[in-house]
Amino acid sequence: MRIPYAEMRAEFTRILLKNNFSEERAENCAEIFATNSLEGIYSHGVYRFSRFVDYVRKGFVIPDAEPEKHSGVGAIEQWNGNLGPGPLNAEFCTRQAMKLASDNGIGCVAIANTNHWMRGGTYGWQAARKGYVFIGWTNTERNMPAWGAKESRLGNNPMVFAVPFGTEAIVLDFAMTQFSYGKIEALKTEGKELPFAGGFNKNNELTNRPDEILETMRGLPIGYWKGAGLSLLLDILATILSAGLSTSELSKREKEHGVSQVFIAIDLKKLKNYPSIESTISAIIDDFKASSTITDGAQIRYPGERVITTRNENLKHGIPVEKLTWEMIQQM
Amino acid sequence: MRIPYAEMRAEFTRILLKNNFSEERAENCAEIFATNSLEGIYSHGVYRFSRFVDYVRKGFVIPDAEPEKHSGVGAIEQWNGNLGPGPLNAEFCTRQAMKLASDNGIGCVAIANTNHWMRGGTYGWQAARKGYVFIGWTNTERNMPAWGAKESRLGNNPMVFAVPFGTEAIVLDFAMTQFSYGKIEALKTEGKELPFAGGFNKNNELTNRPDEILETMRGLPIGYWKGAGLSLLLDILATILSAGLSTSELSKREKEHGVSQVFIAIDLKKLKNYPSIESTISAIIDDFKASSTITDGAQIRYPGERVITTRNENLKHGIPVEKLTWEMIQQM
Repeated sequence: MRIPYAEMRAEFTRILLKNNFSEERAENCAEIFATNSLEGIYSHGVYRFSRFVDYVRKGFVIPDAEPEKHSGVGAIEQWNGNLGPGPLNAEFCTRQAMKLASDNGIGCVAIANTNHWMRGGTYGWQAARKGYVFIGWTNTERNMPAWGAKESRLGNNPMVFAVPFGTEAIVLDFAMTQFSYGKIEALKTEGKELPFAGGFNKNNELTNRPDEILETMRGLPIGYWKGAGLSLLLDILATILSAGLSTSELSKREKEHGVSQVFIAIDLKKLKNYPSIESTISAIIDDFKASSTITDGAQIRYPGERVITTRNENLKHGIPVEKLTWEMIQQM
Repeated sequence: MRIPYAEMRAEFTRILLKNNFSEERAENCAEIFATNSLEGIYSHGVYRFSRFVDYVRKGFVIPDAEPEKHSGVGAIEQWNGNLGPGPLNAEFCTRQAMKLASDNGIGCVAIANTNHWMRGGTYGWQAARKGYVFIGWTNTERNMPAWGAKESRLGNNPMVFAVPFGTEAIVLDFAMTQFSYGKIEALKTEGKELPFAGGFNKNNELTNRPDEILETMRGLPIGYWKGAGLSLLLDILATILSAGLSTSELSKREKEHGVSQVFIAIDLKKLKNYPSIESTISAIIDDFKASSTITDGAQIRYPGERVITTRNENLKHGIPVEKLTWEMIQQM
């Protein structure tokens, strides 16, 4: 079935209000979950919403907790997320990094003790559509092995890069595992294999089989040793810049909460070449898209391009959602 | 054969002095090439030196050109590299980003019109050993296809992340292709295959065969579509932040010169949690290295760990180099 954006957002708001969110915070948070769904990131929108509310009920996410400044000097600040809702904290940090960037050209906000930001791309889109470059990342609990390791001690630590593109944005939002566990589970349900090796089986061999990867929970790092190395560096940086918990410390908790995140913004309006930036980006994208393709008639797409198509389609026809999921949400 | 570090450095200095480098700049530049070799990155040290000198002779690299400030506001600055030697320009930008970070917590320097920095890790080591976080990247000429594309229109745009670690550093220096063309050529010479697919053959299939990849020059992006997307974003960012040339524009030139680069530094001493950062990083690394390994007796290594071993070994026994290469250098 398809649910209109406004209806989904209103449902989310209603449920959050019932779960100790203030009116303003319920509306903000509902907007993020509904927009993630509208833009096609269903796994971190409508399909994640009930788990988010469950975490609120269990006290992992504290609805009215707001970020507090821990320290700051010049263009860099450290905040404590006080276990508030991840999307609200992340939106706050994005705005704060943009403010620092407006004052200093570049700004960096690191936040400790926050929660899952759902879809990192959300904050990239927000900053880039207002004329800022955005670079951000989060650590996560353990779900990926170091290169050569038998057990998962690294997080898949998603990272986001975004730049403005006309009134829209180019947004790369990628985790350090080749495939998300959500994707792997979906393929298992459909009885399909992954298109490329996506993890290790219990014999330490690379495998395309979803069931084998879900058995070991050892997802494959992108670029093998490279993605494993990047995950480690992102965890170290998020931890030391925020004075927060590392992947290893997080993983001692019953459920993932209290993660560490970094938000960097650059204000393009401060640059001398600002007037020509839009045409520079257009020229790069034109050249990129002019590649001949392996499959006849296929299109070369830049990161985030699909979001615009999906958003328009879902605005017109409603957001696709499994009937059972939607009924469950209506009963919450 | 093995050449002592001091001897290699002196040879490089001698040759650079013969090629219009001032004494100070010849010594600096020779030090970088010799250190890259000492630390095991021979491909961008002793084996790249004669090509570097060739580029100087052809006028692609201008020995006495120094970077000029194009514009700057707060913690971000744009510089023009004036086609000076890439390693000297990169070293300058690293120092400048560190200076901005000392004043503002975080600093960003973007440079247009510069040249190949050789080994990006060099600048990560320099900054991190002085207590700074370092994030930097460069664009390159075209050598990697977009995802689904038949031709290479993206660069492999190497990126570096570095953090201090005791008196040493943790340094991740990675290109967006799974294997460097240098590595692929070396395996071809040895008649070996790549351990994983490293590019596409002329039938657009993934292949482990070096000869097939060298035929198409279509290296595989790390993480398939993810590394291709990251390469695009890094090119856009380097180009707009420096007001420099993009991969596409660079590739119109006879030989790669005039690339765009970004250097970001964060001064950890400015953070309130600075006193505990060293122990935080140690705890993360201890946990990382405690993983059980697939191969019995193998070690889990953090990025840059091998550099320390290699440096010590080469300091003791000299830097390994092919006799022919060294004789050629002695005759330059």
